[in-house]
Amino acid sequence: MTANPEIFGTPRNTATISYGDLAELLATIFRHAGASPAVASLLAANCAGCERDGATSHGVFRIPGYLASIASGWVDARAEPRIESAEGAVVRVDAMNGFAQPALELVTPILIEKAANDGIALLSIRNSHHFSALWPDVEPLAEAGLLALTMVNSFACTVPFNGHSPVFGTNPIAFAAPRADAPPLVADLATSAMANGDVQIAFREGRSLPPGHGVDSAGRPTTDPAAVLNGGALLPFGGYKGSTISMMIEIFGAALTGGKFSFEVDWSTHSGAQTPHTGQVLIVISPDFGRRDSSFGRRVNGLVEQLRMSGVSRLPGDRRQVTRRRSLRDGIVMPLQQLEDLRRRADGV
Amino acid sequence: MTANPEIFGTPRNTATISYGDLAELLATIFRHAGASPAVASLLAANCAGCERDGATSHGVFRIPGYLASIASGWVDARAEPRIESAEGAVVRVDAMNGFAQPALELVTPILIEKAANDGIALLSIRNSHHFSALWPDVEPLAEAGLLALTMVNSFACTVPFNGHSPVFGTNPIAFAAPRADAPPLVADLATSAMANGDVQIAFREGRSLPPGHGVDSAGRPTTDPAAVLNGGALLPFGGYKGSTISMMIEIFGAALTGGKFSFEVDWSTHSGAQTPHTGQVLIVISPDFGRRDSSFGRRVNGLVEQLRMSGVSRLPGDRRQVTRRRSLRDGIVMPLQQLEDLRRRADGV
Repeated sequence: MTANPEIFGTPRNTATISYGDLAELLATIFRHAGASPAVASLLAANCAGCERDGATSHGVFRIPGYLASIASGWVDARAEPRIESAEGAVVRVDAMNGFAQPALELVTPILIEKAANDGIALLSIRNSHHFSALWPDVEPLAEAGLLALTMVNSFACTVPFNGHSPVFGTNPIAFAAPRADAPPLVADLATSAMANGDVQIAFREGRSLPPGHGVDSAGRPTTDPAAVLNGGALLPFGGYKGSTISMMIEIFGAALTGGKFSFEVDWSTHSGAQTPHTGQVLIVISPDFGRRDSSFGRRVNGLVEQLRMSGVSRLPGDRRQVTRRRSLRDGIVMPLQQLEDLRRRADGV
Repeated sequence: MTANPEIFGTPRNTATISYGDLAELLATIFRHAGASPAVASLLAANCAGCERDGATSHGVFRIPGYLASIASGWVDARAEPRIESAEGAVVRVDAMNGFAQPALELVTPILIEKAANDGIALLSIRNSHHFSALWPDVEPLAEAGLLALTMVNSFACTVPFNGHSPVFGTNPIAFAAPRADAPPLVADLATSAMANGDVQIAFREGRSLPPGHGVDSAGRPTTDPAAVLNGGALLPFGGYKGSTISMMIEIFGAALTGGKFSFEVDWSTHSGAQTPHTGQVLIVISPDFGRRDSSFGRRVNGLVEQLRMSGVSRLPGDRRQVTRRRSLRDGIVMPLQQLEDLRRRADGV
């Protein structure tokens, strides 16, 4: 894992760009980097969507990492995912050493059909790279009326509770639940105490990490993001319990899919590689299947209302929704220099 | 929630009893309390199993709570669960205001068949009471070769992150993964900072709680278990992230099943009621479905080995396995007075 603080300088002036223009710009950059048009479009839409929603740790900030990984030959940005089996309620896909998103895109219609017919469906992706947030994978499924849960393991950067060396990745889990007459409730959380992207941003911005989030290369607690990035490691969130959930994500993301465990990811032969090469699992549920009523969306609203009444002012995804509406209305605000860098890259300069 | 410290005194002498004899004793007690023979046998085997495995917070310690709940008319210990639908890969069961375990027992053969045919199956239980640990629900499924995940919500006793009043239950999640040539890997964790049973045991034993685990009736942090039990509340584990997982469990346990949210459980009209009346969800996966090889169990072993090499000396379920072997060999060790109390109850004294 290498941060790329040299690419983007300190913001002085800002500029705005529409979501569509940013996605087009990024697609051009991905194509220049060797991605197939289909993969370039998908990654660009995903990355521009993160930037649009204020999820900057998975937005344009990630472009150098994507490009370095592609350039290193570690990930195949021209890969065409292959369906290995689609029996019963299970779809198994080999991402062919490409990104996970094209695999998900390929089988989403099958998943939706299976969930409609059987009530539940499982998507298992192996031989895949995931370098973005997880919420973009589940939100569209919830917008299609499905309850969706996904887990992905990454690369060994998190020391298990009571262990002394990294075994787990940041191992995020995300879920999205449809609501009645409202955007879905969407949550996405790393099971490490913080996300790698946030460590990289803290490093770039010269900020310390909160205590209890990381260790240095000797396993000693540290608040220095550079020490975590240079041979150190993260800790799981929530001690023993968070560590147990991270272990579950290794089992679902790797043992179940046939992908690599986080500790098996070895990119030492590919200088610049940054995209974890593992697996991903999605469970998709038709929430009112087998019931006489179709109350699920209203029931989720009831929970949301109770949480608001309890004083919870911000639910998972709230900030993204607000930022998305503002970005779609006023354009995405970015540091001018960052946007100019992107334009130079797109022009092949 | 009421602790029952008056039932069992401080252990002075101990006695041993076999698992089979303890289960029989408890079944007699449940039958005397009005449970049907089928429900009595299931609850007794479950509770004796917890005691056998050293999971004492869900063992014999819970008997007074079970009996008070049954006596109050809050839960129907003679209920016969009813299958509402079993289409596709989904089984929906109405537990008929009885315990969840008879519902699970009833449909386990169907679940196993569906998982074999479709690769994944969903069990949704509503109108059910769950007063035990969750690991006994998933361990037998993993012993049958299935990857199993379950979630159950409970009753409002946990304040969401950034909230000021209880919304969530202790909301446990459990999973079990089959291993090759070894007992399954089984984990069970409350998403509250601690389990209610452990608060009750701390109260009984006069111990303080660790800081950050609970609040008193005014919402102030406290380490006094009595303050938590008497109008106070627990906190989620792991701050914002643990709170988000607890929210997910409300959605799966209640919105998906048609059961009550934890904050909707109102037992104020049933003095002595202690069993949360909500819902439970189980997802059961045939882990090698749709694959050419059957590597899942060996892959889980590989993860376990890596965790041991990283210095993790105790994996989830390890302690239960050790205690179980000892109990099956030497008998279950219990305080003599506790065993005498049980025998008096069984004799109807």
